[in-house]
Amino acid sequence: MRDLSKHPELFSLNTATVRERWDLQQIIDGCLRHGVKAIAPWREQVQAMGLDAAAKALRASGLTLNGYCRGGLFTAPDAAGRAKAIDDNKRAVDEAAAIGAQCVVLVVGGVAASGAKGLTQAHRQIEDAIGAVLAYARTTGVKLAIEPLHPMYANDRACVNTLKHANDLCETLGPGVGVAVDVYHTWWDLALEREIARAGKAGTILGFHVCDWLAPTTDLLTDRGMMGDGVIDIPKIRGWVEAAGYAGFVEAEIFSSKNWWKRDPDEVIGICLERFRTVC
Amino acid sequence: MRDLSKHPELFSLNTATVRERWDLQQIIDGCLRHGVKAIAPWREQVQAMGLDAAAKALRASGLTLNGYCRGGLFTAPDAAGRAKAIDDNKRAVDEAAAIGAQCVVLVVGGVAASGAKGLTQAHRQIEDAIGAVLAYARTTGVKLAIEPLHPMYANDRACVNTLKHANDLCETLGPGVGVAVDVYHTWWDLALEREIARAGKAGTILGFHVCDWLAPTTDLLTDRGMMGDGVIDIPKIRGWVEAAGYAGFVEAEIFSSKNWWKRDPDEVIGICLERFRTVC
Repeated sequence: MRDLSKHPELFSLNTATVRERWDLQQIIDGCLRHGVKAIAPWREQVQAMGLDAAAKALRASGLTLNGYCRGGLFTAPDAAGRAKAIDDNKRAVDEAAAIGAQCVVLVVGGVAASGAKGLTQAHRQIEDAIGAVLAYARTTGVKLAIEPLHPMYANDRACVNTLKHANDLCETLGPGVGVAVDVYHTWWDLALEREIARAGKAGTILGFHVCDWLAPTTDLLTDRGMMGDGVIDIPKIRGWVEAAGYAGFVEAEIFSSKNWWKRDPDEVIGICLERFRTVC
Repeated sequence: MRDLSKHPELFSLNTATVRERWDLQQIIDGCLRHGVKAIAPWREQVQAMGLDAAAKALRASGLTLNGYCRGGLFTAPDAAGRAKAIDDNKRAVDEAAAIGAQCVVLVVGGVAASGAKGLTQAHRQIEDAIGAVLAYARTTGVKLAIEPLHPMYANDRACVNTLKHANDLCETLGPGVGVAVDVYHTWWDLALEREIARAGKAGTILGFHVCDWLAPTTDLLTDRGMMGDGVIDIPKIRGWVEAAGYAGFVEAEIFSSKNWWKRDPDEVIGICLERFRTVC
């Protein structure tokens, strides 16, 4: 297992962690100030700066872009809606290629938008759509990373809720698609160790995200904790991921409307780096 | 599959659905008014009335008690805390026997109370404690029903979060313990159909609970929907449960601080019964 205290270069900042108070240029500047070597930016921030300007600024920064957030949201009640989502995801792939991001992270879409009760329709729509975007992504070299989300998001965000399901999709869909493992979404899952090993064997682990599960959790989306402040055994899960062959970044992604989003982003990055060294 | 529109006697009311405005006697009277034949009462309500008085009133009512809520909460950082939880669960078994309830429903306890990060310690504590309570329950004829809770409760309420995990525990622990399948907690799970069939084969399905998952869901605990108002394909899951041999009640259990708990319980029971007939 890697000794993170000796490898600050393995830290990546998901830019959602500081997006409430900084735009993309400020994030780039802040990361360089703190010696951060990698980020995973969000589309909204890139689009706010303009794709060409963002690509130029990001290239000039020397930062590695280990992911681009986010694609997906494939479920829709009608064919037109689904086609629109696929087109939008192809544009996300183009943007990722333009800025030099290694993969597009997919939050695949929830049941509510699928137009039917239960999982069946939504799952079919998602598999079809990822297949369509994948065929395009393969022509660009950009990979797709399916991020299984916590089951509490099955309805409104993503109804791929276990790493097993994401791994099954990768097996079905073939080369060019992998998984992003986020401890927040997966820590409760008894099958996690086994499915991480399976993804490792397939060579499909494209990202590893950390934050923490707080007690109590007061909001389904934006009450995520700083690493170390919750109940997740992060080193154990990182150990599984690295035993499976993952050698990439450890990406901090914290949605926190009541706490971290309100603080000075310089402070937040500093604490992220300290926790990265000491509790991840 | 049973035609619920012709079998109102299969409906059971979990008393939490109306607990904010009615005490146990009012619930008994209300259920009799509406022709309800079964309820699953909560300990707090029984204790508020007094065990002897409650047992007498429940026997006089002729209502079937298909479950008693709730036992569990077994995780604790020290041996004294765990022993106390086991004792309390034995008392719950005694109370269930006294009122004539068929089983004690177990919400097994979360990771936060276990005194350690991650699942390992909590799972060990839970298995040990259920084993201890089960040895006692077998002497009384009262069964234990492990209710896998939605993974969003892994931290604070129950870290048995899939029917597979509950089935595994039942296999390990042996006769006298089964599962309660609640659509709210399990609807997102791709393995649900298979695990329901497995529980059916083992003869361990002790309860089937319904409500619905709303979009959006604004509270982790008390924003559950009336059957039909959300995205769960309830008839599909009921079909699986009945194909697995389940012939028991369909129990409505709705935690809803913003809506149903505020309404007239007579109205709530009436709507429950209508939805039971038409959308379950």
